[in-house]
Amino acid sequence: MSDLAQLLQQYRQRVEQQLDRLVTTEQALEPRLQQTMRHGLLNGGKRLRPALVYLSHKLCSGEGPHILTDRAAVAIECVHSYSLVHDDLPAMDDDDLRRGQPTCHIAFDEASAILAGDALQCLAFEHLSEPCEGVSAALQLRMLNVLARASGERGMVAGQAFDLSHVDKPLALEQLQAMHAHKTGALITAAVELGALSACAPGEDKLELLRRYGDLIGLAFQIQDDLLDIEGDTATLGKPQGSDLAQNKPTYPALLGLEGARERLHQLHEEAVTILRGFGPDANDLIALTDYIVNRDH
Amino acid sequence: MSDLAQLLQQYRQRVEQQLDRLVTTEQALEPRLQQTMRHGLLNGGKRLRPALVYLSHKLCSGEGPHILTDRAAVAIECVHSYSLVHDDLPAMDDDDLRRGQPTCHIAFDEASAILAGDALQCLAFEHLSEPCEGVSAALQLRMLNVLARASGERGMVAGQAFDLSHVDKPLALEQLQAMHAHKTGALITAAVELGALSACAPGEDKLELLRRYGDLIGLAFQIQDDLLDIEGDTATLGKPQGSDLAQNKPTYPALLGLEGARERLHQLHEEAVTILRGFGPDANDLIALTDYIVNRDH
Repeated sequence: MSDLAQLLQQYRQRVEQQLDRLVTTEQALEPRLQQTMRHGLLNGGKRLRPALVYLSHKLCSGEGPHILTDRAAVAIECVHSYSLVHDDLPAMDDDDLRRGQPTCHIAFDEASAILAGDALQCLAFEHLSEPCEGVSAALQLRMLNVLARASGERGMVAGQAFDLSHVDKPLALEQLQAMHAHKTGALITAAVELGALSACAPGEDKLELLRRYGDLIGLAFQIQDDLLDIEGDTATLGKPQGSDLAQNKPTYPALLGLEGARERLHQLHEEAVTILRGFGPDANDLIALTDYIVNRDH
Repeated sequence: MSDLAQLLQQYRQRVEQQLDRLVTTEQALEPRLQQTMRHGLLNGGKRLRPALVYLSHKLCSGEGPHILTDRAAVAIECVHSYSLVHDDLPAMDDDDLRRGQPTCHIAFDEASAILAGDALQCLAFEHLSEPCEGVSAALQLRMLNVLARASGERGMVAGQAFDLSHVDKPLALEQLQAMHAHKTGALITAAVELGALSACAPGEDKLELLRRYGDLIGLAFQIQDDLLDIEGDTATLGKPQGSDLAQNKPTYPALLGLEGARERLHQLHEEAVTILRGFGPDANDLIALTDYIVNRDH
């Protein structure tokens, strides 16, 4: 196993242990709600966003995670998971499978999936606002604000709404880019920023560079997603290969051609890594993750 | 117009002006999302929870609203509105009308209603976490935590999930009470607590009393709701009279009888007012609102 794979596994376990403890059916008024939340949360996700949080923190501090790094990793995964639970609903993308498993509204029911998503979003903000001994409340509040701005009507939700209203409609490259910058990019950039903020005093110039890095890697992530939909295979992807094409969804390869999309991915990758190199050897693990994001096969 | 009616109108206008400014379609990626949010937010609600925030603040400080009082009033109304938008969905209560107007998924569509609800919840936490000059970040963070705990899987959402899974099933009085304490009570108590907290240093003993007051009035509110469903008329209610009965929903009158439910309402009212009287003349407006909640006809 490569060093990066070991590190990712370690972070994945770290965040999953916390998620597992966070949502329990004990003493719950309606245990089925918590079961649905757990189904949406603990379903074998890659935990890419938590890894970005941890590695961005490491890059800024050179040290192991701060308590706020853990809080941010958990919170961002709650937001990401809630968004998938709601995206899969019949009125939205209407997906029965997610990572090879039945989606929440299939495994449970539609009302439970809606409510579990609602509760998961709320849990993100609850967790990040829990009292935290010896930690600056101002910093915690700022992190909450970063997460909220990335998640809502000017971030992720706007991207999802735009996406849904443009199925079967042609999109210009600029629109496609704006859609992804909102839909997936905002939360990825927030992950990088939250990790850096949890290092306590990264400085505004570093934060600005890392936000730019987050924007680049968010876009790269999406282009690779589009390419995998064409080039990947269904078993590895955990969802039907070619589903974007079948649903007539706008994609980078559709607008730029396969070669054009690959070239754009390469440029984004280069620029992202150049930014990270400026941070010296503490950036090595994040560079390795960046390479992985661009080269992943699922 | 009575003094209370004037005061409530003033608070309603105050919170609606802020809500109106908060969600704008200008420069939005997908203006339809913001339109749906506005439909869910600005639909002639009574703004009872903001009024509780303002009057609880007034009781603790004797003064006009602090900036955090406004923030809390807006945030709690965002959470309340999102919960109504989602409750009305076909997979949930499947309501076409809310306050005599088409619900969000009727006026727009189901996906828009789901996303607008998601964005409204997020907006509550975004708004309450915005930087606030000269205000204690620790206090702001605590208020966020109070709101999140009341809204999620141990609060409002749990109550809604329990309610949905018990339609057509007999409930014991204790279960009915637990359901309402979560579904509507938690947010009402949070409104009272947030108003008090925004008065900066109300003291833990006062907070404890006010939380108890909130619990009492939350329960009283629900019993009055149940009674109105039987005794009210459709035009005044803005929803079909008798709809609980038609849907075979568990209610206080069904468990306690009409007279028993009225008697219980009277006891809760007495206890709530007794708590408030302990706060002296600054409590008079909140006492008037308490009387109104118990005697309202819609």
